[in-house]
Amino acid sequence: MNPSRPPSLDAMLGLVASDMNAVNQVILARMQSEIPLIPELAGHLIAGGGKRMRPMLTLASARLLDYTGSRHHKLAAAVEFIHTATLLHDDVVDGSGMRRGRRTANIIWGNPASVLVGDFLFSRSFELMVEEGSLKVLRILSNASAVIAEGEVNQLTAQRRIDLGEDRYLEIIGAKTAALFAAACRIAAVVAERDETAELALDSYGRNLGIAFQLVDDAIDYASDGATMGKDAGDDFRDGKVTLPVILAYARGSESEKAFWREAIAGHRVSDEDLAHATQLLRDSGAIADTMARARLYGQRAIDAIGGFHASAAKAAMVEAVEFAVARAY
Amino acid sequence: MNPSRPPSLDAMLGLVASDMNAVNQVILARMQSEIPLIPELAGHLIAGGGKRMRPMLTLASARLLDYTGSRHHKLAAAVEFIHTATLLHDDVVDGSGMRRGRRTANIIWGNPASVLVGDFLFSRSFELMVEEGSLKVLRILSNASAVIAEGEVNQLTAQRRIDLGEDRYLEIIGAKTAALFAAACRIAAVVAERDETAELALDSYGRNLGIAFQLVDDAIDYASDGATMGKDAGDDFRDGKVTLPVILAYARGSESEKAFWREAIAGHRVSDEDLAHATQLLRDSGAIADTMARARLYGQRAIDAIGGFHASAAKAAMVEAVEFAVARAY
Repeated sequence: MNPSRPPSLDAMLGLVASDMNAVNQVILARMQSEIPLIPELAGHLIAGGGKRMRPMLTLASARLLDYTGSRHHKLAAAVEFIHTATLLHDDVVDGSGMRRGRRTANIIWGNPASVLVGDFLFSRSFELMVEEGSLKVLRILSNASAVIAEGEVNQLTAQRRIDLGEDRYLEIIGAKTAALFAAACRIAAVVAERDETAELALDSYGRNLGIAFQLVDDAIDYASDGATMGKDAGDDFRDGKVTLPVILAYARGSESEKAFWREAIAGHRVSDEDLAHATQLLRDSGAIADTMARARLYGQRAIDAIGGFHASAAKAAMVEAVEFAVARAY
Repeated sequence: MNPSRPPSLDAMLGLVASDMNAVNQVILARMQSEIPLIPELAGHLIAGGGKRMRPMLTLASARLLDYTGSRHHKLAAAVEFIHTATLLHDDVVDGSGMRRGRRTANIIWGNPASVLVGDFLFSRSFELMVEEGSLKVLRILSNASAVIAEGEVNQLTAQRRIDLGEDRYLEIIGAKTAALFAAACRIAAVVAERDETAELALDSYGRNLGIAFQLVDDAIDYASDGATMGKDAGDDFRDGKVTLPVILAYARGSESEKAFWREAIAGHRVSDEDLAHATQLLRDSGAIADTMARARLYGQRAIDAIGGFHASAAKAAMVEAVEFAVARAY
């Protein structure tokens, strides 16, 4: 990494550019259907400015292992379909109106359409995996899917629980976010026919990066403007979402501050002044800084997990992607 | 079949009883999760008096092929999980309040929980298939899942369209209902390692039976009491659902009758008098009788599809299951 410029995803984007073209062709071809609503709705989200972070990790991991084939293109597309299906259902569950700076599919086409097109993409992702034909990959990704769904239900039952605690929160994001990051990286080792050590190293890289990513997102939500996040600062706060910054500020707060957080998470503190007060409490208690410190710790674990692989452009790009993830915003 | 008694499912139930015990054990074991809401919600539907029609067809088809192993137990459970996931999402999409005479999960636990537990069961069904390890079975069932989801979206876009037409309606139920019946039967031939002729025969049996089943359900909805259906007569009518009886009555109706149907399907005719009038029109136009005639035709195709297999208790039970399906209510 060049110390004169901040870390970015450019190296990784460059590394996987030609593979990603192939993946995008699979994605576009396989979201088609004779029912026009399916490509219309799926295309809104898939074409809508997502970073393709997960398929990018599959492609970068394959490069790290010097894999030069194309077996992973369908699989990377399958990973993106699983992710897209999850987003569609998430937005229904949360009643979200905005994502990546655009109106959500559930707002434009309604909840029923979002549920069903999500189901279609999920089924299609399994069709893609079956076509590729590796039972090991199918096991990794079907397991990740079940873990994600379990994590979503876990989060639902934890909704607006100010006393959630750090451990359970990490468990939830480990399932909801990190499991697919881990699987996306791990399947590259299967495709490249590498041993279990390589599989586990890539799994660990993805898992820790996923957690770091989510924690930084949580912190950014209390600091960014809409341009950075594609959603407005304070969305988590207004939705009463219990994220790590809130968990830490609550744990460290005085009785009156705890009372404020309880009211906020119960949905009774949604004004701009309330958000300003919350942000102040998060800064003063060190909750934001310490969320970022934890994110950096997970980021360091991700980097160390791939320490055993020989130096390469792919490895440097994967390290820089972690640095980028934890350097955002703060 | 004994001509002195009406056809029933008893022969099939007896045929598969011991296998079904094994399947039920898989179902109960694999709907568990550390997140209590998952078994609670899934159990409501799975334990809630369903006929287990689809796994029963897998088991009966395996018997027809003299298969005596247990490879199909996990697969039959996977089929039931796919079906259950579909029901959970269906009830969210339709806003249904009752199913099989009980309150629906979305009413008890809310839409978000139903969506997410459906996703979990769907993922779990793929885990089961992967454990069993047949890529051919995975292909059949992942394809069926995509076809089902596509059919659901197709139906959604056709909602309240009185001019739907018989062909498009058959296309929808072919995807929504019959695809899983077909796949449930077909996978038995894969497990029993029989040739493609056997696969296609069982696929055809299941597909035609599925269509017959759905058409009879459509007819019964205008005739039964709650005890027969586990839902109230006229539910489809009040929900403005365009089913084959309505399509036929509309096509055959006078201008004023057509106007009545348009208003009904638009949701402006929901009184008991309206339902009585609709039922009268359906009878007078022959729409109910002809829906049943079509159901019997598909039933006959199902029976003929397995005509090539040698006579056995399993074959007799599968024939009687079709006769039972088309003899219900009318």
